[in-house]
Amino acid sequence: MKWDNLDTEPCPVARTVAVIGDRWTLLLLRDCFLGVRRFEAFQRRLAISRTIIADRLNALVEEGLLRREPYQDAPVRHEYRLTAKGLSLYPVLMSMASWGNAHSGMPAQARLRFRHKRCGAQCKPALVCDACGEPLDAREVEAHAGAARGANKPRKRS
Amino acid sequence: MKWDNLDTEPCPVARTVAVIGDRWTLLLLRDCFLGVRRFEAFQRRLAISRTIIADRLNALVEEGLLRREPYQDAPVRHEYRLTAKGLSLYPVLMSMASWGNAHSGMPAQARLRFRHKRCGAQCKPALVCDACGEPLDAREVEAHAGAARGANKPRKRS
Repeated sequence: MKWDNLDTEPCPVARTVAVIGDRWTLLLLRDCFLGVRRFEAFQRRLAISRTIIADRLNALVEEGLLRREPYQDAPVRHEYRLTAKGLSLYPVLMSMASWGNAHSGMPAQARLRFRHKRCGAQCKPALVCDACGEPLDAREVEAHAGAARGANKPRKRS
Repeated sequence: MKWDNLDTEPCPVARTVAVIGDRWTLLLLRDCFLGVRRFEAFQRRLAISRTIIADRLNALVEEGLLRREPYQDAPVRHEYRLTAKGLSLYPVLMSMASWGNAHSGMPAQARLRFRHKRCGAQCKPALVCDACGEPLDAREVEAHAGAARGANKPRKRS
């Protein structure tokens, strides 16, 4: 498997990795979800070379995860906003934040806390089955490639 | 921000990226969740150099995401199994699979389908608020660093 071919692999994880499986891309996306939009702000926060940032932002625009919008006329300057496709990555980034909070030795005072504006609660993200609403556990999910099968077709437990 | 320092950044996403923000590491973890355990099997599936695979597997063991278990005596051979810490990455990998299914131009017949053994349904993962059970939307969640606050303390909407 070559890195250049990951985006044509017949696996949805490999294809996602082809788009976002890069350290700086992931941190840029994190910043986008935190409301950062301008090149200078990304650069200030990440403190890495402008070339790396421009390269990753351009790729994210090409992939349709970010769109460029002008915010100034003379000279024209653009900011970067998440598209619907980019916003759909929220569960990936939130799950990473949640894992990092719990498992990366973060001091308690540095952990990211989340407040769900809709219900007002301090919350954690939970990954659940969209059919029954129960938390998804790796050992209770079977993955298989192919077209959808009957929703309740009995299958042997392996 | 330097790559080597990401694991000490005061941000849970950066710390997670430091551990798993590498293309091959993510694909190895995918394979672990699909039940792959042996070096030869990882190598056959990824078809990349043994050095890269050994390097990434060793790092995952050092980080405590995988553990080595002997499965053969003479010569001793080990397989790699997810630890509880590794299994906790399930929401990250599942969210990536789900995004790839929906947004990476996968032909329908190649999409990964998931069956929740507990309820029997073909399912999709959904990221919800653990307090109210509603789906989490990026625009309805405030993130802030620091110790937990009162669950319903009113905060100005920004």
